[in-house]
This record gives sequence, structure tokens and C-alpha cells, in this order.
Amino acid sequence: MANGGVPVAIIMGSQSDWPTMKHAADILDHLGIPYAARIVSAHRTPERMYTFARSARAEGFKVIIAGAGGAAHLPGMTASLTPLPVFGVPIESRTLKGEDSLLSIVQMPAGIPVGTLAIGKAGAVNAALLAAAVLALTDETLAERLDSHRKAQSDSVAEFPSDEF
Amino acid sequence: MANGGVPVAIIMGSQSDWPTMKHAADILDHLGIPYAARIVSAHRTPERMYTFARSARAEGFKVIIAGAGGAAHLPGMTASLTPLPVFGVPIESRTLKGEDSLLSIVQMPAGIPVGTLAIGKAGAVNAALLAAAVLALTDETLAERLDSHRKAQSDSVAEFPSDEF
Amino acid sequence: MANGGVPVAIIMGSQSDWPTMKHAADILDHLGIPYAARIVSAHRTPERMYTFARSARAEGFKVIIAGAGGAAHLPGMTASLTPLPVFGVPIESRTLKGEDSLLSIVQMPAGIPVGTLAIGKAGAVNAALLAAAVLALTDETLAERLDSHRKAQSDSVAEFPSDEF
Amino acid sequence: MANGGVPVAIIMGSQSDWPTMKHAADILDHLGIPYAARIVSAHRTPERMYTFARSARAEGFKVIIAGAGGAAHLPGMTASLTPLPVFGVPIESRTLKGEDSLLSIVQMPAGIPVGTLAIGKAGAVNAALLAAAVLALTDETLAERLDSHRKAQSDSVAEFPSDEF
Amino acid sequence: MANGGVPVAIIMGSQSDWPTMKHAADILDHLGIPYAARIVSAHRTPERMYTFARSARAEGFKVIIAGAGGAAHLPGMTASLTPLPVFGVPIESRTLKGEDSLLSIVQMPAGIPVGTLAIGKAGAVNAALLAAAVLALTDETLAERLDSHRKAQSDSVAEFPSDEF
Amino acid sequence: MANGGVPVAIIMGSQSDWPTMKHAADILDHLGIPYAARIVSAHRTPERMYTFARSARAEGFKVIIAGAGGAAHLPGMTASLTPLPVFGVPIESRTLKGEDSLLSIVQMPAGIPVGTLAIGKAGAVNAALLAAAVLALTDETLAERLDSHRKAQSDSVAEFPSDEF
Amino acid sequence: MANGGVPVAIIMGSQSDWPTMKHAADILDHLGIPYAARIVSAHRTPERMYTFARSARAEGFKVIIAGAGGAAHLPGMTASLTPLPVFGVPIESRTLKGEDSLLSIVQMPAGIPVGTLAIGKAGAVNAALLAAAVLALTDETLAERLDSHRKAQSDSVAEFPSDEF
Amino acid sequence: MANGGVPVAIIMGSQSDWPTMKHAADILDHLGIPYAARIVSAHRTPERMYTFARSARAEGFKVIIAGAGGAAHLPGMTASLTPLPVFGVPIESRTLKGEDSLLSIVQMPAGIPVGTLAIGKAGAVNAALLAAAVLALTDETLAERLDSHRKAQSDSVAEFPSDEF
Repeated sequence: MANGGVPVAIIMGSQSDWPTMKHAADILDHLGIPYAARIVSAHRTPERMYTFARSARAEGFKVIIAGAGGAAHLPGMTASLTPLPVFGVPIESRTLKGEDSLLSIVQMPAGIPVGTLAIGKAGAVNAALLAAAVLALTDETLAERLDSHRKAQSDSVAEFPSDEF
Repeated sequence: MANGGVPVAIIMGSQSDWPTMKHAADILDHLGIPYAARIVSAHRTPERMYTFARSARAEGFKVIIAGAGGAAHLPGMTASLTPLPVFGVPIESRTLKGEDSLLSIVQMPAGIPVGTLAIGKAGAVNAALLAAAVLALTDETLAERLDSHRKAQSDSVAEFPSDEF
Repeated sequence: MANGGVPVAIIMGSQSDWPTMKHAADILDHLGIPYAARIVSAHRTPERMYTFARSARAEGFKVIIAGAGGAAHLPGMTASLTPLPVFGVPIESRTLKGEDSLLSIVQMPAGIPVGTLAIGKAGAVNAALLAAAVLALTDETLAERLDSHRKAQSDSVAEFPSDEF
Repeated sequence: MANGGVPVAIIMGSQSDWPTMKHAADILDHLGIPYAARIVSAHRTPERMYTFARSARAEGFKVIIAGAGGAAHLPGMTASLTPLPVFGVPIESRTLKGEDSLLSIVQMPAGIPVGTLAIGKAGAVNAALLAAAVLALTDETLAERLDSHRKAQSDSVAEFPSDEF
Repeated sequence: MANGGVPVAIIMGSQSDWPTMKHAADILDHLGIPYAARIVSAHRTPERMYTFARSARAEGFKVIIAGAGGAAHLPGMTASLTPLPVFGVPIESRTLKGEDSLLSIVQMPAGIPVGTLAIGKAGAVNAALLAAAVLALTDETLAERLDSHRKAQSDSVAEFPSDEF
Repeated sequence: MANGGVPVAIIMGSQSDWPTMKHAADILDHLGIPYAARIVSAHRTPERMYTFARSARAEGFKVIIAGAGGAAHLPGMTASLTPLPVFGVPIESRTLKGEDSLLSIVQMPAGIPVGTLAIGKAGAVNAALLAAAVLALTDETLAERLDSHRKAQSDSVAEFPSDEF
Repeated sequence: MANGGVPVAIIMGSQSDWPTMKHAADILDHLGIPYAARIVSAHRTPERMYTFARSARAEGFKVIIAGAGGAAHLPGMTASLTPLPVFGVPIESRTLKGEDSLLSIVQMPAGIPVGTLAIGKAGAVNAALLAAAVLALTDETLAERLDSHRKAQSDSVAEFPSDEF
Repeated sequence: MANGGVPVAIIMGSQSDWPTMKHAADILDHLGIPYAARIVSAHRTPERMYTFARSARAEGFKVIIAGAGGAAHLPGMTASLTPLPVFGVPIESRTLKGEDSLLSIVQMPAGIPVGTLAIGKAGAVNAALLAAAVLALTDETLAERLDSHRKAQSDSVAEFPSDEF
């Protein structure tokens, strides 16, 4: 494949989205899934977005994780330009706290789906886990790693609260 | 000019937006301003949107009025692809009543402006009036027609309420 | 496989969700993707939900589409019980118009992802298309059918608005 | 009884909910009502939740107080698995300030009730007081303690504001 | 007892709330729980509310179900005047769809709890079920009837959707 | 008069509301209008509220300013117990930022009015100014002082912005 | 006085607000309070608004009731132009149901108060009752009529719900 | 021209809006567009607003940028008093985070348009860019400067995220 078999692309509208989207990257690292992270602004670099999205399948990507905030158009526009599954992460915005980001991403019209995750860090983590779940459908080893991750996650939940934080 | 001097483009994401956007067309008709109305879906016809927006200035358009609903990306994406002033009309959506449309259009990041009007019919009317106000800056005749329209509008307000509706 | 190779399960909390979720079924029919549709109420039949979700992978399902309204727990609880990708459809609720459904589905904590689609019919259509996009990653024939569907969708967008509705 | 007569269970989705839920514990301590506090995540430990809720009545619990945040499924799922009264406390969430927690808990469908309290600390305090009011229906001594608590609460309200804070 | 052993009071702010609150009465009828239904407006009959709430325990009531809409003060004011458990039902309001009713009922300050149910009919049904759950704690026969009701409810959920509505 | 001619009562639900309501007191001080400030909790001291509101007119008060937060019942309940004009100030609440306070105060049913001001400090200031405007209707001297205050307010608005803050 | 002693002005932004504002007029009629009703659009007839508001006190008005919808500027602008008490009625708007009207009226900055009532009909009724309460402060006869109205209102509340609507 | 050819007026309701509106001034400085910045409070200096808006066209202004917060009436009232295009910037408000400002500006009735930008700094930047886009329609040099600004903006977007912030 053109991109050497990197299955996941993490794209975001701005450098300032990276502290949120890095949580997706960390999960993918943890699960041993290669990814490429790129800044692709729907508004300030529409051509770059167009080129990226149009060629993503040919490049070899399987899943795209797209984070954006405010009037967040990157996930939906990417989804309109590629047949690959796109998962959207609403970045927490300053004034409206991500409510604008969420609605701009999730309320897509019939025909162009974006699987949308929670606002902020939890959404970034979960976008990576959802991408992993998709890839695990045809990758037994990854499926086992994901099962282990989920089991470890369950095991890490304490049974009783403690006053020490 | 390539488009024969038509200064205003009215674009919308779907045929179902026309009953709202037609109110913009009616105002332009009334003020004698030529316009072109086109369906340009950001999501279902992204290439058509790219082509339209990238060539709008060269075609001779001066102002673009863009209506869209839900995760409404058309006004903002158009604004990212043309230096012309773009005025956005949030279409009333079924479940969230246009609150999603409004936030998806108005909350653009710094760098790419969309002058956003009210949700629905009032927004369509006002997008046309705002386009007219822009064109009237360098068109004395239009300025006078617009003044007359505003005066007639003021004169048409009754002084006392009537029970007859 | 236990379920004879049916890759998609459409589950919903109540019979009254079927008019919405049927739109997902229609898209899968159209794309030739087998599916099973079941009523699995998180609240009224929690055991049925546990049993379904815990055995879904072993049954042979690849993707689960879950629709629910109000305090919508079905998508998230299913996701907590299966490693399969879960896509959630917020059903339009009577008083809050699906805003409660949307937040109950999309705001999942880090660790358990639900890829959430738009409120109502558009969300159901798109959940099916997203499931198709996932399956198409390893099914060339389906990928082609999906490409044709997307192309037909683009082609069906008129260029100019018409007053006839 | 299996649990030695402890009437109230305080459950929460995560260790991070304890600073809020501790206020419920403090009130129960103050009123001399025994309780058990456990971490039972609907999403990360669904089996633990299932086991806890299914056996809560047999264990001897009378009332369950459940706190959760975001897409808060713990109170409602617990209520679906036990006939005991369940009182829900929406934890203040980071981005949406508990509006998502509130709607995810309170908007339960007909059939499975969760008596929902205010977002955050006030809700935790009040969940404990409501549990006490339920237990006081058949516990004269507790009823008197609760009356004293309410009277002390009224008496503690100053009559005139003071600038000293 | 003063009221002949009627354990549940259903109060509401206005005659117009009865079509909603009647669903609570229907459930209580179904479960064989006696109740008294009264119109007690916090705003238009504050004395009646004071008298009712202050004497409710002495009258023999065990649980109060209070429905109100808009700036809904009845549940909270009743809770401030009686030590009995109060369950609040937000009535769907005309313009804000019960969002105002919900917040006015659920956001009680620490000290005076109101166990709040969903907006509208589902909330009324659930307030009655929650009252029944409280009474069933010390009424074995009622506990069995409630278990049967819950079982019948589960059994009534179809397994497969049908196109016939 | 019983209260020696003090025309304005400022009441609030809790000592913690005083930092907000003090702004109303400051304006009344500035305009030379006597007032009494009392803590009257609708929920924790309902009898005190009842007694205060029922006797407020006989005591000689003309206008009541009532501040409260969350499920804010004090302004509306006071208005239900006195024929005097009541002006409500929604206190900014922790989680919902006063949106709950605002709706709980302003959405009163037909029959019992509360003239509601803005959330927080601006609302407290304006409640005092509105009380002054009412009293000025029959107090020429106060009317002149209020005119002066308004004029000074207008004069104090700079014409040009300055970078020094 | 210039206006022959009419104490209340009811103003509204548009003829279409009259079906709502007529409820204020009906209450004033019922209480025998003379009023003038005028259409004064802040946006379409700003001069008329300036002239009306600037001369309202000299004309003899005591209280102004102002209804407006959407970006509702009439109540606040009137309050900025007259020292008389202004009571605002948010008209229910089509898409946002009066939430925009409410916030545009109630969130006035410190310095210019508008006593805001509920959205729609209840707000119009209550604006008239609040105006009456203000006038009754110095009109013993009106105070008695208002007391009678309130007493009749209390008496009209049924004690028990009836299924006949 | 009366104002010596200054094409843009930046007006705001209060000195405290300048830290936001200064971002509009910075962009105009950067693009070499002269502007006048004035404090014109709709509520505290309505005459100043009236005078400014009525004479703005005669003074030579072409475009007005108006920022205001809370019940933000300045943009809409200015638009009602001048035929010039008015672009509104919702200032972030303390409690409601600018949601009140946004609705008060954007939801104008048909007839009086305000092209509304995003809440806060991004909106101020974009109001200036939109004004520039309007002026560039008839100013070739400015059009080129604006094109360069947009190009530089695109070029400044990094391709890959960096952990250094």
C-alpha cells in the first residue's frame, strides 16, 4: 500500500486540537496500531483536506479519526470525500464548551455518516478504540489485544471508594 | 463578466431548502437584483461545491448567499474557498429547530467569516437585504431602491393593533 | 457462523423505534447486506440485552446498530458488553426532541465507544451506511456497491431549484 | 439479612465520583444510617453491576443511591435490575456541566423509575435525605432524628445577611 | 389513620395537569394502592398547599406525588413542608417543552429533596411505580404484585419488530 | 407604618446570595431609598417566608426584591402570598450558571407575576433601579434623583475605547 | 395629563404580537385600568419608538408593557429611553419557541432594567397584573379590585381533578 | 467625505468590549483599512447611538462592525437606523457564555439584517475580514492584500502536530 500499511489517519483542524487528539494517538500506540497524524483544516486548507480525503483509501488508510471544534466541518467534509469510515471527535470549544462542535459533527444529513464520539478527551480515546474495534474484525491478534485492554480496564476499577485522591 | 453580470448567487444544500431560500430570491427580484440559484450540496456534491466556490469570483459574482440545515457546512466551506462575502442562512431543522444549523454556520473559526442571519424565512429575507446593502455601496440606483423599500417597510407598520387577522 | 453469516444486528429499545430504525434496514436491504432486527430493551429486558450483547460476536455479527430514545442506555450498555463496533441512533423523543437521546448516547466515558449518528431518520440511514463502510473494508463487491450508491446519491442532486414539490 | 442490616447502598461509576457522593455518605453518617459504598461501573464493569443490582434486595438493601456522570447509565440500569427504589445523582461533567448526566438519568421511559436529584453535591446530600425519609416511614427513631435535622437546618438560617463571608 | 390508610397523595397545580397525572393514578389503581388526588396550586392556593403539606404525615400519607409545570414550585415547596418522601413530575410546558418544569423541580438546594421523574406521561407512570417500590419495602403482598407487574412488562416486549402499528 | 416607612424589602434564600444581592442594596443606598434585607429561605424556612410575605403590605413595604438560585422558588412563592410587586433576581448557580434560576423565576403561570431581571449582579442592580422607578412614580424628589443617576450613567460612558484597563 | 390619565401603555413590535398581548389588555379591561395599545417596532419604526418612549412620561403614562419576539429589542430600548417602569413580554417565536425572545429581554446590562415575564400568554397576563400591582400602591380602589381578582382566582381552583375537560 | 474616507466603524456597547473588539481593529490595521472605534451604548447612550447610526452613511462609512453582549441590542438597532451593512459580534457574557448575546444579535426579524459572526475573539476577527471582503469588491489593491492574507493563513497551518505548545 501507498502508505506502507498504516491503517488509521488522525486528522485535526488545528495544532491546538492536538492536546485532545493525542489521547487517540496514545491508545493506538498502546494497542500497537500504526497511524499518521496530520493537521488538515477544512477552512484554512480546504485543498489539503480535499486531496487528503480523496486519496485516503488509495493511500491504504482504513479508518479516519477527525477532530474539530466550533463550526466543526472537518469530519463531515472528509466523510463526503471518502468511502472510508470516519469517526468524529468534537473538540471542547471556549465559549459553548463543545456543544457547537458536537452538533456540527453529529447532525449530518442522510447519506454521509460520521460516527461521533463524546466531546473532548473521552471522545478522542473512544475514537481510537472504535477504530481498533473495526480493524479487529479482521485481525485476530488485535482482537485479542483489544480484549486484554478491555479486561484490564474492568480489572482496574476499584471496588470501594477511597478518600485518597 | 463570465456570468453576464449576475452579482448574487443563492446556493443551498438541497431542493428541500428552496421553500426557505426562495424568500431571498423574492427580495432580490423585488429590488431588481439579478441572481443565480443553484443546489450545491457540501456533502453529496462536494466537487460541485469546490468548483462553484473556487470560480465564483471569476464568474463575476459579488456576494454569495448560502442556506443549509443540520450539520450545515455549505456556508463555511464556501467561505473557505472564495474571497467573496458569504452570508449564511440556517435552515430550520426537524428535530433541533435550526439550533444545530445556526451553530454550524455562525461559530466559524477566526480566519474564515460567514455573516450569519436568523434561522429560516427571516434569515433568507435578510440575507438578500444584506447582499443588497453591500451592492448598494457602489450602486446609487440600488441604494435608492433599498431606501424606498425600507421606507415602505416602516410605513406599512400599523399604529394600532386590530383584532382582524 | 452461528447466525449463518448475518453481519449486522439492528437492535432497538421498543417497537415504537421501528419506524425510525426501519430506514437502517432499508439501506442494508438496498446494499444487499443481511441483517437481523431485534427488540432489546435495556430497561425492560436487561437480561435479553446481556445475553444478546455478550454472544453477539460469537453469533457472527460484525457490527451492531442500536437505536434508543430518552435516557437512551441501549447503545452504551451494548458497547460495554461486546467488543464489536456499536453505532448509536438517537431516536427523536417527544418532549426534548432527541436532545436527551443524543447526549445519553454520545457522551460515553473513555473506554467504551459508541459511534453516534444524527437524531432520527438521518441517523438510522447513516448508521447503516457506516456499517456498510466498515464491512466494505474487506468486501470488494460491497465496496463497489457502496461507491455506486454514493455516486447515484451525488447524481440525484438537482442543479437548480424547482418550485414543484 | 445477608448484609447484616445495612439499608442503603451508595454506588457510583468511578472513583472520581466519590468527592461528590461522599456528601451522601456524610448525611447518612450524621443520621446514623448504615450504608455500603461501592464502585460499580455500568460501562467498565457491567457484570459487577448486574450482580450487585440483581442481588441487592436479597442482600438486605432497602434503597440504592446511584451517582454517575456524562452518558450516565448506572442509575437507570440498576433500576432495571432491582425492584428497590433507586435515587440518581447526576455528577457534574466537565464540558456540559452535568446537563448530559441529568438528562441521561431523569428521562427514563415509563416502567423503570429513577428518582433524580440535583446535579452535584446538593443532589448527593438530597439523595441521602430522601433515602432517610423513605426509611423513616417505618422507623420512628429515625423519623425523629430526621425531624431534628430539618429543624436544625431551619434554625441555622440567619435572619439578616452579613458582609462577613 | 386520619385518612383511613390512604398511603399516596397525588397533587397537582392545576386541573390541566390531570391528563398527565392520571397516568400515575392508573398505575396505583392497577397495583391496588389507594390514593387521594387533589389540586393544590402553590401559586394560586398557597394556603391550601401549606395546610395539605403540613398535615400530610398526620393524615396518614406515606408518599406524595406532585406534578407541576413551568416555574414548577409545588413539588419543592411541598417537600419543604413535610418530612414525607416527595416525588416530582415535570409537566410538559407549552413553549419550553418541560425543560423549565424539570429544572424548577430537580435543582433543589441541599436540604430539601425531591425525587424527580421524567417530563410528562412517563414521569407520572414512574412516580407511581417509585411510590409503589417504597411502599413495597414493608408490604410483602405489594412487593409481589410489583414483581408481577415488572415481569409482565418484560414479557410484553416483543422480540422482533413488526411493520404493523 | 409598621416598619417605619421602609419601602423596599430585599429578601434572599441564603447568606450566600448576599454578595449578589448587596448590589441591589448599594443602589438603594445611593438613591437614598430605605430598605430592609432579610434571609428568607422558601425551602429551609417556609414559615418565615409565609409570615414575611403575608404581612409585607401591612408592614408598609411597597416593593419586594427577591433573589434565589437553582430551583428558585422564593420570588414566585412570595408573589403568591402578597399583592405587592415582586421583582426576582436569578442568582448564578454553580453548574447551570443561573439558567435554572432564571427559568424557575420567570416562567410563572398566569395569575402570579414576578418581574424578572438578569442573572447575577446586573439583575440585582436593575431590580433596585426598577423598584426605584416604581417608587418614583409618586415621589418627585426620587424621580429627580433617578433622572440624575441615569444622566450620570450616560455621561460616564466614554466615547472612545482605551487600551488601559 | 397629556393622554387624559391613561396610566398603561401596551406596545408591541408587530401586529402579529397582538393575539398574545391582547391578554394583557383583557386583564386591564377586567380591572378597569385604562390603557393605550400601540404598534411600535424597534426595528422597522425606530423613530416612532424614540418619540413614544421619550415622551411617555410627559404623556402621563405610568407603566409600559412591551411585547416582542426573536431578537426582541423593544422592551430594553424603551427602557433606555424612559424612566418609567417597563415590563417585558417575550413573544413565542417560531423556531426557538421564545428562548431567544426571553434572553433578548431579560439579560439587560446593569443600569437599564426590564421586569420580564413568562414567554407568551402567561407573560402578557402577568405583565398586566404587575402593572396593576404597581398602580395599586397608590390607588386604594384598584388595590381592592386586585385583591378581589386574586381571591376569585384562588377560589376558582377546584379541589379535586375531574376527567371532564 | 465627512470622515475623511474612513470606511469602517467599529462600535461597541462598553469599554469592557474593547479587549474583544480590538481583534477586529488589529485585522483592519494589518490590511491597511482605516477605521474609527467608538463606544456607543444602545442602552446607556441611546441618543448617541441614534445620532451615530443615522449619520453613518453621510459621514462616509461603508460598513459598521458592532459588538455587544447579553441582551445585545446595539447591532440590530444600528441596522434599523442605517442602510449600511452591519456585522454583529456577540461578546462572551459572564453567565450564559454569549449564548444570550448570539441570539439577541442573530435572530433579527425579516427586514433588518445583521450579518452575525461567532461569539468572542473569532467573531471580531471575522467581522473585520468580512468588512474587508465587502470593501475589496471595488478595491483591487485591497483584494490582493486580502488574497495574500488568506494565502499566508493557509501556509501557516502546519502539516503535522507537534507536542511543543
